[in-house]
Amino acid sequence: VSSHRPWSEVASIDPASARRRLAEARVARLATVGPSGPHLVPVCFALADDTAYSAVDDKPKRHRSLARLANLAGDRRACLLVDHYEENWNRLWWVRADVWARLELGRSEQRRALELLLAKYPQYAGWELGPLVALDVERITGWQAGPD
Amino acid sequence: VSSHRPWSEVASIDPASARRRLAEARVARLATVGPSGPHLVPVCFALADDTAYSAVDDKPKRHRSLARLANLAGDRRACLLVDHYEENWNRLWWVRADVWARLELGRSEQRRALELLLAKYPQYAGWELGPLVALDVERITGWQAGPD
Repeated sequence: VSSHRPWSEVASIDPASARRRLAEARVARLATVGPSGPHLVPVCFALADDTAYSAVDDKPKRHRSLARLANLAGDRRACLLVDHYEENWNRLWWVRADVWARLELGRSEQRRALELLLAKYPQYAGWELGPLVALDVERITGWQAGPD
Repeated sequence: VSSHRPWSEVASIDPASARRRLAEARVARLATVGPSGPHLVPVCFALADDTAYSAVDDKPKRHRSLARLANLAGDRRACLLVDHYEENWNRLWWVRADVWARLELGRSEQRRALELLLAKYPQYAGWELGPLVALDVERITGWQAGPD
């Protein structure tokens, strides 16, 4: 019987390593809560200090109806998850950030966030990005199956 | 300017393909809602008909305090997400299932779920799996950047 249990809830990554893995991840999943329950989308994001920035990259006309924005306008609590899966379960890990969302950003923070996103994702070059969401990290927890 | 927008909310995978991708995925993320907001964990799962089964693989003593189980006992609505990321954003896709959770399974359903999980994940062989969660799929939506 293996002692490694996949996706355990027991936090066992040290905070610095958890933060690094969050910062380096190319994709995360964002959970929000709306009138019909929890909602999940994958997001690209850039982490600066204790804030993760994400851009809505949909067409302008659709912004208002995006579930994640409607949800966050009603309930600012959200959750970001980054995880690593492979068939060798001794190498599984995840990092979760409990966050508070801000939908209204000042101009300088907006500019900085766009710079960070563009620096992390060259794919954004030339795009017109939609509204930015700032996710202020309140708590980071993480777990890994084996040693570093 | 690329016409491909990552992680768009516009559903564009046909239902059969979305269901197949969900069934084949090795890992999903499960969002639940608790008193302190949304909660996210990665999960292994097996899909049969319209139900996804997932096992808690933590130590027995911890079951009761697991956030996902406590959350689902209070609010059965949950959300499963499967996504594919790569640096070529023309190949991004995601599939989301809105689900209702059941924590009490009859003995035959329990046995079937364990068989399905073991068949999908040989890694579980020899484990003592914890409580099973049944996630009845209410709706599947999905999106992909490019054609199949």
